[in-house]
Amino acid sequence: MRYRATLAYDGSAYWGFQRQAGDAPTIQAAVEAAISRITGEQSNVIAAGRTDTGVHASGQVIAFDLEGWRHGATTLTKALNSALPDDISARDIREAPGFHPRYDAISRRYVYTVLQAEVRDPLLWKRAWWLEHPLQLAPMQQAAALLAGTHDFATFGQPPQGVNTVRTVTVSRWTEAPTETGSLLWYTVEANAFLHHQVRRMVGMLIDVGRGWLTNADFETRFRSADLKQARRAAPPHGLILEAVRYHD
Amino acid sequence: MRYRATLAYDGSAYWGFQRQAGDAPTIQAAVEAAISRITGEQSNVIAAGRTDTGVHASGQVIAFDLEGWRHGATTLTKALNSALPDDISARDIREAPGFHPRYDAISRRYVYTVLQAEVRDPLLWKRAWWLEHPLQLAPMQQAAALLAGTHDFATFGQPPQGVNTVRTVTVSRWTEAPTETGSLLWYTVEANAFLHHQVRRMVGMLIDVGRGWLTNADFETRFRSADLKQARRAAPPHGLILEAVRYHD
Repeated sequence: MRYRATLAYDGSAYWGFQRQAGDAPTIQAAVEAAISRITGEQSNVIAAGRTDTGVHASGQVIAFDLEGWRHGATTLTKALNSALPDDISARDIREAPGFHPRYDAISRRYVYTVLQAEVRDPLLWKRAWWLEHPLQLAPMQQAAALLAGTHDFATFGQPPQGVNTVRTVTVSRWTEAPTETGSLLWYTVEANAFLHHQVRRMVGMLIDVGRGWLTNADFETRFRSADLKQARRAAPPHGLILEAVRYHD
Repeated sequence: MRYRATLAYDGSAYWGFQRQAGDAPTIQAAVEAAISRITGEQSNVIAAGRTDTGVHASGQVIAFDLEGWRHGATTLTKALNSALPDDISARDIREAPGFHPRYDAISRRYVYTVLQAEVRDPLLWKRAWWLEHPLQLAPMQQAAALLAGTHDFATFGQPPQGVNTVRTVTVSRWTEAPTETGSLLWYTVEANAFLHHQVRRMVGMLIDVGRGWLTNADFETRFRSADLKQARRAAPPHGLILEAVRYHD
């Protein structure tokens, strides 16, 4: 029987989602170990998105197969959460015959958090990218709007050979909230799919616009070039959260 | 010259604010070590409130004396933040002759975060008290309102001998926000001063009302008894933040 689950994790202690050679701590390895501990079965966990080292998730979706589980999904949820470390949790576990979290997904939504303030905030440590430099929201918002739609995103991601780099972005916007000493900014982006490192590279270039290091015309030229050499430095992973994956349900 | 500063910290890795015998990691010891590293001076750091092990702060206020610093408050802010570990930061540093963070404070505000959800949230790990049990907000709100005003709070804190236990609470309320799988609840409490462990014991008893383990009449009887033996289990420290300290400025 195939099971589906929604996973949340603090990615700080992990080398990304995907299992690696050796005993590198990864989310996949931790979840597979927990499944094995409670069921005795060696199951392969498939995810909707392979998050990088240090990237978090509040709504990652996974699937795995179990041959012999006879106690139902509710008991499986309790047992799995007891076996998982404190920085990973699983919810909404249910039987889902034929379900594939990656191929069946119609969109993924990521949120990137930036703290603009003179002094860092220890309570957002490993959750937000701290920038001292003041940011201009209006040009960042304008550049973000340019990314919405169906475009070639090759400036922001190197695909495996032969794979096309056209994606459809349905949401691309900044939200800002003032704090006592600066402001918090969230970039929300949703697309049918993303290239590797695409979100972090988009945020990196959007922030360069906010800092005044790139004009909106520069941004557009680089974006339209569809050339990875035109990318700016990627934003650091710890500000990124995979928030949700959508399916035809 | 006396300096004043506002401190934020993630208390997870520390044995509370106050310096302890031996080399126990405390906030005070970390800040004094950073001051010593940049100035060469052994300064004693005084705080508005001595937070417990695992308790956080976004607006702790401290003071310390420096004899030989000649580079101004802005340079001191940069230098101190460079010398502090990532989980502590200092802002709003200024010269403040005669200032005492504890004696001069007119009020302290704490916020306690509770996550009510079937499954824990790894992104709120060490920031919120996770409770599986559903909570009824209305009776919790009613009990919280009872705490506002000038009362004997001996049920919630054991004072040193001869010290009175009357305090004036000016704010005591719950705020709730729904989440995908449950709700986040914040208890905000402000008072002229607090007894040791008072906030965590108040939250513990308020939550017992929300769970239906105590009626509002039980709560009132225990509160009015002014007897520490009537306290319930204190809420865990990791949900608590010292948010602000107010002064006549």
